[in-house]
Amino acid sequence: MNAAVDFPLTRPELAFTASGDSLVRRTVLPNGLRILSEHMPGARSATIGYWVAVGSRDELAATDTRAATYGSTHFLEHLLFKGTTKRSALDIAVAFDAVGGEHNALTAKEHTCYYAKVRDRDLPMAVEVITDMLTSSLLDPVEFENERGVILEELAMMDDDPGDVANERFFEGVLGEHPLGRPIGGRPQSILDVSREAVLEHYRANYRASDVVVTAAGAVDHDTLVAQVSAALALAGWPADAVAAPVERRVLAPATIIGGPSLSVVHRPIEQVHLQIGGEGLIAGDSRRFAMSMLNSILGGGMSSRLFQEIREKRGLAYSVYSFAGTYSDAGVFGLAAACSTAKAGTVAELMLAELHGVAERGVSDDELARALGQLSGASALALEDSDSRMSRLGRAELTLGEFIDLDESIRRLQLVSRDDVQHLAQFLTAQPITVSAVGAVDEDAFAPIIAGVR
Amino acid sequence: MNAAVDFPLTRPELAFTASGDSLVRRTVLPNGLRILSEHMPGARSATIGYWVAVGSRDELAATDTRAATYGSTHFLEHLLFKGTTKRSALDIAVAFDAVGGEHNALTAKEHTCYYAKVRDRDLPMAVEVITDMLTSSLLDPVEFENERGVILEELAMMDDDPGDVANERFFEGVLGEHPLGRPIGGRPQSILDVSREAVLEHYRANYRASDVVVTAAGAVDHDTLVAQVSAALALAGWPADAVAAPVERRVLAPATIIGGPSLSVVHRPIEQVHLQIGGEGLIAGDSRRFAMSMLNSILGGGMSSRLFQEIREKRGLAYSVYSFAGTYSDAGVFGLAAACSTAKAGTVAELMLAELHGVAERGVSDDELARALGQLSGASALALEDSDSRMSRLGRAELTLGEFIDLDESIRRLQLVSRDDVQHLAQFLTAQPITVSAVGAVDEDAFAPIIAGVR
Repeated sequence: MNAAVDFPLTRPELAFTASGDSLVRRTVLPNGLRILSEHMPGARSATIGYWVAVGSRDELAATDTRAATYGSTHFLEHLLFKGTTKRSALDIAVAFDAVGGEHNALTAKEHTCYYAKVRDRDLPMAVEVITDMLTSSLLDPVEFENERGVILEELAMMDDDPGDVANERFFEGVLGEHPLGRPIGGRPQSILDVSREAVLEHYRANYRASDVVVTAAGAVDHDTLVAQVSAALALAGWPADAVAAPVERRVLAPATIIGGPSLSVVHRPIEQVHLQIGGEGLIAGDSRRFAMSMLNSILGGGMSSRLFQEIREKRGLAYSVYSFAGTYSDAGVFGLAAACSTAKAGTVAELMLAELHGVAERGVSDDELARALGQLSGASALALEDSDSRMSRLGRAELTLGEFIDLDESIRRLQLVSRDDVQHLAQFLTAQPITVSAVGAVDEDAFAPIIAGVR
Repeated sequence: MNAAVDFPLTRPELAFTASGDSLVRRTVLPNGLRILSEHMPGARSATIGYWVAVGSRDELAATDTRAATYGSTHFLEHLLFKGTTKRSALDIAVAFDAVGGEHNALTAKEHTCYYAKVRDRDLPMAVEVITDMLTSSLLDPVEFENERGVILEELAMMDDDPGDVANERFFEGVLGEHPLGRPIGGRPQSILDVSREAVLEHYRANYRASDVVVTAAGAVDHDTLVAQVSAALALAGWPADAVAAPVERRVLAPATIIGGPSLSVVHRPIEQVHLQIGGEGLIAGDSRRFAMSMLNSILGGGMSSRLFQEIREKRGLAYSVYSFAGTYSDAGVFGLAAACSTAKAGTVAELMLAELHGVAERGVSDDELARALGQLSGASALALEDSDSRMSRLGRAELTLGEFIDLDESIRRLQLVSRDDVQHLAQFLTAQPITVSAVGAVDEDAFAPIIAGVR
């Protein structure tokens, strides 16, 4: 049994048993690529993810000689499905479709992940195809132009979603000019402007062996996986024994943020107003993150949470209402969100904020603390039955924290959170400059009392 | 090994082993309530669902003396969370939140389902609480009015979602005045008009022991489950040994549909147009449903499908494009869907329809058939690792089909589908009156060629 295990970048091999009865193993190849697996006894399928340590925050601003590369990480993620030196786009699609596997990718602010869930017998195929996609993409010029159109459609779809727009504006408001404040997909103009050469340069600069972490969970044997990944890398001209630049992780330390207080209203002729209210939160390495999980559960984590009870159950003002926290290496956000009719938007905003201030001023009860602990530990136990969750946990541990925390240890840390810890965290959050983001047929005036600091 | 097993309504006990190594058991209580379980060896959690054989199609039209009850099934589903003779709304929420279980409900056109996924030790709690909700709801007048507000917010949220609106209009277009054509949630006016008495009457008329099916999968012991459900029913004054009206299922036979050809455009000042094109499909009992699964996979089921390849990969015209089939006891729909920029909407509509006609005219290849079989069997195998999918499969088998088909047998039936079967089905589908539904900043004219039958 190991509760919390360090993942040192210089140690080539590591193995331990996590709570439950899974075996976690980790190998750092000489070329810097890291491979982690979690064997789940009895599993018949596996989820594998290839994580690349590049996200939208790593994109470049415009200079005199070059357009901004905003959105290029996401553009690149799409392009990697469009063909390699060995496989056409159709070949890649057929490989996964023919076995009924789920396969997709996601671009985030600090990483990109290509993943697949397949039956055990199809795992070698997944390794081969994803390795090929990552190492040997063509970025074919014709495919590039076609995909530019697809990306523009995806941005248009998100722009038509008022909840997405409210969230983008919220991040911009809270984080200001910090690179984490930018939308992941870029803007239509940055996508229209970007050249194939710029995206190719982004690919070459950020997809190196030392940037890649492979994590797999479920029916997976570590030695076999390492051999398969190594063989696929060799085939791609990325030999496992090549000497690489030292592997690094992002530094976990708070940046100086110049954001908020701010109010951003996007006027749309729709029925509801989508609201997000909040401010700076915690960075990923903050020791208060377990208190944040408890606060988030108590405030907006379920049907018994304060926001749900007050806004929906007692007053019938909204269908959707919740709280959220986002943590990154050097910044974080915390927010309250709801969607409600236009006439109620000001009231809902004030009521939501009053709940956060209520915790800051009067704290939480022992019952709430116990319930939050039950909710978080139960939900984690259920989630870890799926290989997807375990694959993601490994990726987060390796890429961001450099530390693996198993279920027992994370429950132990949640148990250590006191009522004071939760209240102090709420006090910290209410002391941050406030950002209000709203999308709908609402006037700025509706939020004047909040921005003026009068609740 | 049993491949396909009948579920006769008059047989009180049934047990068999399904493919894999799960044990399925079924008990019909004297009062007509049915309990089915699937024990999955090694599982540590379970999913339980309480299915009620009432959906939006069963709601009543307005008469001289009464408003329509459209939307009342969904309204009722919400109200069942709002308190019983023994539990407040908060008690119900706390019960599930405190153990981290997922719990929710969904209202469909032909059934309502209340479900929970919990760790094995929490299953008795789930049985107690959901049984209480179903049998002993108060429909408290104050909660009723609060929840009316929540439902109106939910309808407003859906009305702001162009994809949801396109789908509602599509069903109305294809199915015309048939009760399955109506939206599940009702309309704001029907929700504003409906009285507590009408919803209470809907509850009394449709929530009887013989209308309820309990299905559970995962870490569940059948005898224990039957004892727990029976005890909870007795506590609620629904004794298991009460003699009930005979249990019935909906008759699986095609109704006469008077719908389509039709064009419905909802004008909205948004960036994309959400399109749905299609017509009548198959009923749930149609023997061609396995061919439908194959056609749906080939046409719009994955990244290698014809729609995805043609519309997105080759032409970059859309981000989201797929096909879908909906089957009900006496009617069904089949449709093609995409979201794209306004200027491309007519072209995308024509290209999508051309793909369906292409199958009708020239059929599919052996490769496509093999790939679809691989995709469907692989995806089913992966899905059945989760207790949720098995819980749902039991519910569908009991409520709709009266027949349980295990994975091996469904793969066998898919293998029997020939290229001719798929082509003939596509011919049948293209022979139906066509419905086009579009939401966005587009003119009706864009679809004139399609409605005129000129592709």
